[in-house]
Amino acid sequence: MSIKIIKGGITAPKGFLAAGISCGIKKLNRKKDLGLIYSQVPAISSTLFTKNKIKAAPIEVTRKNLRGGFCQALVVNSGNANCATGINSLRNAQEMVTLVAEGLGIKPSQVAVASTGIIGVPLPMEKIKRGIKSLVKEIHQKGSSHFAEAIITTDTFSKEISIKIKIKDKDVCLAGVAKGAGMIFPNLATMLCFLTTDAKVEKNFLKMALKKAIDESFNLITVDGETSTNDMVLMMANGLAGNIELKEKTKEAKIFQEGLNFVTSHLSKLIVKDGEGATKLIEIKVKGASSKESAKKIALSVANSNLVKCAFFGEDPNWGRILSAIGNANVPINSQKIDISYENIKIVKNGSAVKYSGKEIKKIMKKPEIKIVIDLKMGKNQVRVWTTDLSYDYVKINAAYRT
Amino acid sequence: MSIKIIKGGITAPKGFLAAGISCGIKKLNRKKDLGLIYSQVPAISSTLFTKNKIKAAPIEVTRKNLRGGFCQALVVNSGNANCATGINSLRNAQEMVTLVAEGLGIKPSQVAVASTGIIGVPLPMEKIKRGIKSLVKEIHQKGSSHFAEAIITTDTFSKEISIKIKIKDKDVCLAGVAKGAGMIFPNLATMLCFLTTDAKVEKNFLKMALKKAIDESFNLITVDGETSTNDMVLMMANGLAGNIELKEKTKEAKIFQEGLNFVTSHLSKLIVKDGEGATKLIEIKVKGASSKESAKKIALSVANSNLVKCAFFGEDPNWGRILSAIGNANVPINSQKIDISYENIKIVKNGSAVKYSGKEIKKIMKKPEIKIVIDLKMGKNQVRVWTTDLSYDYVKINAAYRT
Repeated sequence: MSIKIIKGGITAPKGFLAAGISCGIKKLNRKKDLGLIYSQVPAISSTLFTKNKIKAAPIEVTRKNLRGGFCQALVVNSGNANCATGINSLRNAQEMVTLVAEGLGIKPSQVAVASTGIIGVPLPMEKIKRGIKSLVKEIHQKGSSHFAEAIITTDTFSKEISIKIKIKDKDVCLAGVAKGAGMIFPNLATMLCFLTTDAKVEKNFLKMALKKAIDESFNLITVDGETSTNDMVLMMANGLAGNIELKEKTKEAKIFQEGLNFVTSHLSKLIVKDGEGATKLIEIKVKGASSKESAKKIALSVANSNLVKCAFFGEDPNWGRILSAIGNANVPINSQKIDISYENIKIVKNGSAVKYSGKEIKKIMKKPEIKIVIDLKMGKNQVRVWTTDLSYDYVKINAAYRT
Repeated sequence: MSIKIIKGGITAPKGFLAAGISCGIKKLNRKKDLGLIYSQVPAISSTLFTKNKIKAAPIEVTRKNLRGGFCQALVVNSGNANCATGINSLRNAQEMVTLVAEGLGIKPSQVAVASTGIIGVPLPMEKIKRGIKSLVKEIHQKGSSHFAEAIITTDTFSKEISIKIKIKDKDVCLAGVAKGAGMIFPNLATMLCFLTTDAKVEKNFLKMALKKAIDESFNLITVDGETSTNDMVLMMANGLAGNIELKEKTKEAKIFQEGLNFVTSHLSKLIVKDGEGATKLIEIKVKGASSKESAKKIALSVANSNLVKCAFFGEDPNWGRILSAIGNANVPINSQKIDISYENIKIVKNGSAVKYSGKEIKKIMKKPEIKIVIDLKMGKNQVRVWTTDLSYDYVKINAAYRT
């Protein structure tokens, strides 16, 4: 199959418009803090929400609104999580929905809302009300980059991608925008991801395809092992590409899935690259596992180890910490079988140190992207996780974020 | 009951001798790196080992040796974990046992061995052989502080305590020495703790009492959420105090348990205080939980959150991160019921922010020890966990340790 990266972001698929403006929530430099995606026709939607037991109000409102399975618009604010401010949180999230629905002349039950930012501070609703009034007028077909800017918080760059695939003879576009930076961990983090496509997709297939794509991308990245109260993935498929409806277990469905995986993998990798304070992107590949689940547990135990992450920051090939993190995953292993390689250099064989070229390893440790391979030699399952190092800047960003 | 803190450390209980010397494993400044505890009569012993699936050789050898339930001597080296060097690891651990048994004229099956330090580097056995020869001659009744020094790695101070309690009319001594700090060196040797007592104790009761004491102390502290391959707790009870034998469910057993809890709590708190790069000691108390287990999960989720720890380093009362970490514990909660207090100031009531004095909070955040209380209002169980902040120095120590 062929995937072609194209310009345009989330407004590349037919019928999608977007906007991003500053309404004054982020006071500094009047950065953009309010974004809107709009589909000219109601789109089939699928969502995934945070697994944190404490869910912010927008999560609750969106879940309720989209029960019907259709979504025509999404409004997002950054700079404030609209979480833990009592009954006001729910009321404010609902009001954002109502204002957008009125402004666009669509049903409130087809409007999603998301928020990201500080917890426990009431949303400045006057600013948001005025903001939404401008926002609905700003939407246009080149609005993707403005939207992408409006949803970021501590991200240092905005994250978007759009691709074109062929479904039979029809061009179909898939696109996404995401934010991340901190609190990134499987099961979604302070992570927002909005995906658009003009494909015509059968509803249950969309749900399954989205879950699969997220499990293999956003759920396999980690910056600091934390899952936020506000995480949300929303996908909208408006069917305007005119393809035959995509259904499970067809050849076309497979092509679509590959395209979707490409988009979500690309975005999730960008999130890790932009992890708070990250100086390196580390790929942890665990292979030879007796099950996918155990491979994942081990990969995440390594990827979330502060000691492992500090070692990478220090460019120290400290494989003992990797070995110890493997043992901490609480998964049956045979410690006498484990091999560990840094790129193409084997450092541990059958659980014991082997001689290696210090010079070669030094070269690897200096790279901005490093691949670690752990072979358990217990089966045929494998998994790949992306993580970052742990730097002074991570501490700095998170010690000083609020004050 | 009355607990009296006395001098003497692990050699305060009758019949215990100890020593600590430098044998040259730690090259810098010839710091002490080899330690020995000896009981003049075989002591009843109880042990707890790391739950890491990768266990260093000394763990395996000690577990095997002490199957009989008696221990008369313990030898420890620091500076090298004796882990992951293939068949040599086991052979070297066993040889340390043999040398000590020969030197002291006791049974190898009553000798324990422990190691802490770097993973994957062979033990320098020639140095250790010569060292053990000197070590066995050095043991004396004032050797506790030398021993305590010999087992530390990145600890900035050595950790020991001894107390006296009354069992009926008899004076009984309990004492302990520990090392911790963090998992410096390839994630090693977070934690070693050796306890001595001259109490006469029934074997099964000792096992239960030790497990209980550790569950409520060492198992409720965290510096970086990592468990090393070498962790070991060993308790020796030699019975020389002449008390009536302590058995489960007696009044005397309760007194002994309280004394033991005091010793292990004291040592575990010292370990947190000396956590790598720590500038603050944070107490997380979770109360009103529906079970002890859920209280513990929530307390540890908060205590291990990098974001929470960075906020304390920045003296930022960022309760949103605490709330989010509570939600991440994957335990049923009612988010509308949660209260959070910093010392005596309530910041969150029923899941929402309440107004508080910024000045008062600032004062609290500047303290070297801070107490956080989380009330779930779902039951009657509570737990207390100690943790540290996450500072630049943590990153520095762990990025630069080996290179």
